[in-house]
Formats: sequence, C-alpha cells, structure tokens
Amino acid sequence: MTAFPATRTMANVICIVSQKGGTGKTTTAVNLAGALALFERRTLLIDCDPLGNATTGLGIEKQTLSADLADVLTGKAPLEEAVVDTELPDLRLLPGRFSLMEVEKALSLSADRQRRLRKRVEAIAEDYEYILLDAPPSLNFLAVSAMICADWLLIPVQCQIYTLEGMGQLLAIAGSLQQEHNPGLSVAGVLFTMCPDAAEGQITCPEEILGTFRKNLFHTTIPWDGQLRESSDFGRPLVLHDITARGARAYLKLAMELVHFFEQEARSFGEPSPNNEESIGAGAP
Amino acid sequence: MTAFPATRTMANVICIVSQKGGTGKTTTAVNLAGALALFERRTLLIDCDPLGNATTGLGIEKQTLSADLADVLTGKAPLEEAVVDTELPDLRLLPGRFSLMEVEKALSLSADRQRRLRKRVEAIAEDYEYILLDAPPSLNFLAVSAMICADWLLIPVQCQIYTLEGMGQLLAIAGSLQQEHNPGLSVAGVLFTMCPDAAEGQITCPEEILGTFRKNLFHTTIPWDGQLRESSDFGRPLVLHDITARGARAYLKLAMELVHFFEQEARSFGEPSPNNEESIGAGAP
Repeated sequence: MTAFPATRTMANVICIVSQKGGTGKTTTAVNLAGALALFERRTLLIDCDPLGNATTGLGIEKQTLSADLADVLTGKAPLEEAVVDTELPDLRLLPGRFSLMEVEKALSLSADRQRRLRKRVEAIAEDYEYILLDAPPSLNFLAVSAMICADWLLIPVQCQIYTLEGMGQLLAIAGSLQQEHNPGLSVAGVLFTMCPDAAEGQITCPEEILGTFRKNLFHTTIPWDGQLRESSDFGRPLVLHDITARGARAYLKLAMELVHFFEQEARSFGEPSPNNEESIGAGAP
Repeated sequence: MTAFPATRTMANVICIVSQKGGTGKTTTAVNLAGALALFERRTLLIDCDPLGNATTGLGIEKQTLSADLADVLTGKAPLEEAVVDTELPDLRLLPGRFSLMEVEKALSLSADRQRRLRKRVEAIAEDYEYILLDAPPSLNFLAVSAMICADWLLIPVQCQIYTLEGMGQLLAIAGSLQQEHNPGLSVAGVLFTMCPDAAEGQITCPEEILGTFRKNLFHTTIPWDGQLRESSDFGRPLVLHDITARGARAYLKLAMELVHFFEQEARSFGEPSPNNEESIGAGAP
C-alpha cells in the first residue's frame, strides 16, 4: 500500500554533463529535478557550476545563502547545512555560486580533492531517491568531480547541430574516470534538446552520427520551447510555471522515462513494490 | 527514437465507477485524464453523467455545444463530431449534459441499447491511447453502458469512511456484465480518495475490510486537498491549475502507475518501444 518502495536505500546519482555550453544542461537539471519531485521522488539537485544558474533557476537568492557547495567541498560546512528547501517538498538544492571557482586551488594540497564531492554525497545518498548534478560546460576539476560522484551520465546534445562533436573526448574522459576512479559509472543516455518541430519524435540526425549512439539515446526528446530559455527568469522550473508548455511536458516524459528505467520492476497493480536495487545495472545501456 | 509506441493500436478503456456519490469519481476522471495527456498520451474523456461535471471541469460551456454524448448514443451525431478539444493537445472530451437523462427512454425499443456506447467507442479506439469514462453515481443504464464499454474498472472509495459498503453489489453487477456482455472486463483497482494526512501512504483501513481488496488497491492514494473540490470552479484540472498542489501530484502519480502497468515493457533506454498490446492482460489483477 505504500506509495513508493520503502526499502530503497541509495539514490540514483545522475550527472548532467557536456563540455559544450548551450546544450541545455541547466535547463535539463532544473526541469528534470522538478519533474521527479512532482512524482514525489525525493530529489537533490547539486549545482556544480560557478555561474549558479541552476540555483537561480530554482528561485534561490545566492547572496542570502549561509553556505554553498564550495563550503561543503572545502570542509567549512556539512552538506546537510548547505542544502536548501525549494517550492516542492520533495526537491532540495545544494547551491553553487562564484566561490566554486576557488575550490580547486583551495584543495590543491589534498590528494583526494577529486573524490571529495563523491564522499560527501555518499554520506547522504540514503536520504534521496535521485541526486542530479549540474556540471559546468567544461571538463575541469568541477566537472570531473561530478562525474566521479555519479553512477550515470546524461549528456544533452543540441538537436539542430547534427553533430556529436566533442562527444568522443567526453566519452574518453568518462572512460578513464571509470577505470581509475569510478567503476560504477555508465552512460544513461544522450538527450536531444532544442529539437525543431519537424524533428520532434523523429530526429533527422544523419545515420553516420546517430549510428554510434543509437543505443544510448533517450526515447524522449526536448522540443524547442522559448519558455525553457526564460525559465530562470521565473525563478522556478517550467514544469511548475506552466505545466502545459511543450517543454514542460517533455521533461515530465523524460522523468517518467528515467523512473521507468530505474524502477521498472518496482510497480504493478496490487503488489507491494519490491526493492529492486540489484537489478538497476542489469538493463544498463 | 520515437517518443511513444507508434504501433499501439487500441486504447485502454477505463471506466471510473461507483454507485455512491462523493467518492471522487469526476475529480479522478478529470485529473487522471489531464495527467495522462500531460504525459502526451492521446486521451479521450467521456462524460457519462447527466450532471456533466466532468464537462464543466474541463472548461467546456455546455450551452455552446453542437452535439454531446446523448446525440452520439441516439444516432443524431457521429462520435467524432461531438468530441471537443481542450487546453491540452492530447486531451479531448466527449461531453455529457442533462440530455443524457432521455437516452434510455429514446432507445427503449433498441435491443442493443446497452452496447451502443461500446460500439461507438470501438470505432474510434485506435485514435487514442487511453479512454476514460466518468460514470454517474448509480448503477443505471448509463453506468451499465459505461461498464460494458470498458476493459477496466477503476473504483474510487472515500478513504475516511473505512467501509467498502456497496462494493459487493458493484462487483456482482460487474461480474454479471462480464459474463453476459463484456468478457474482457477486469477490475483495475480500488483507489482510496480524500485520505487524511495520517493515512497518506499507509491506509489504516481495518484489515477485515482491506483484506478482501488488498490485491486490487492502487499503490497511489489521493490525499484530501480542498483544491481538488474546487477544481471545477477553475474550469481546468488541478494538474493544470496548480501542479504543485498535493492533490495534483497524487494524480500525476496515479497516471504514472497506470502507464507503468499498461506500458510496462514498452520502454527501456536505447531500445525502440515494442508493441506490447498482447501482454496487457497478463499482469491483470
């Protein structure tokens, strides 16, 4: 009778990553987190970008924060203290702001500096069902820390560009991180964003590009929707601002696709939800 | 890559039924239909109640309609002409209004009168993924027509009442309809509605009542939320009016539970969605 698996023990940790800017990373982080929380999945969004756009996008005033991700990484504040509430009871935020720029230097003498984020997150992973990391548009210390922290990579690609330029480099780095630091890391999928009308539902990406990644594409694609761009002006995810907007509905679908994947066997009418943690890796692409 | 199974051929037809008034039938019909359409499932809501509250709840002005369900049943209008658009591109409505009171009398000489609705709906079942029927609070001609039309019954029960009074009668009639008219009819589940805070997630319904129906309960329960009661004043489902409201989130969860059930094997990362029509009955409770 419980609405959700009561025995779920560890969050699914998903890093939204791409070294290119303007692919829809922060939009995806904010709206996917909002959609998961609408489904009453306990969700934590971690803003790993010094620009702090995910923080602003959730309506958090950066200057009023007593602590942020930089303080957590440098040991000035415990993670629990830096986490803030949002409009949705199931969505919390670990905010990021410009102070993140100084973290790498501050930790230059720490041998474990790239694993710090993972250690901090592991300590609270039982408190959430989903943890999303919004990585900066780079492959720098912060992006690498986020990838070492994650179980899964979600890679947004701007649909109209019809190129997966840079993808090879990203996957090479992810592969070496997997070997050296994070054996559990997998690619959840490539997400096509900003798709023009014609492409919705049927991407016209050339086969020679698509071929390599066909098995790692999300079914859901995110349409072009001007409101998604403006959503940080609202200070709330578009899924809360206007649930009927095409972009908002697309992120609901994406959240459902993720929930299907991670909780596939956890639900059927009239049967209690089993703890299916162990099967999570089984269907991994 | 397509977002949804392109090969899905027939809608899942779900009748929301209970002979008792005030159990949340119309609220469930309107909000579940809205939530399914938010997930971009092509959904048709059929208002089988002469009071037409589902019609009003979707913001449709009854006096402006050129045709309604009564006209469809009496042969005055084809179903396609009576169906109207709503705010959501994937949600359409076959409106009902007071004229439904006259249908049984008008069809008194037709031997097939109880099967008329089913025949009309079968003709358009390929155009939708979900068809919801909002039955009147009665076991009259219209409710029976809706049950003969449906594949599945969804039975809302007011959680606080802690009694399933009348359930035996409803199931007896459903059973005889199944034997005589509709061999494919099944109970999808009992949905607890208007649950007080304490009951959310853990119904305290006495075991002697719950025992019988434990296997037919939806995991999702609908909390008490005053906004759900007022939602017909908004002229739109609460899931559109305020997606952050507790009642709205509960209907999103219910929609996801249904989608999980009906499309359970249709999705996993990186694989095209198979047509799983044939497996729908397999997991039936």
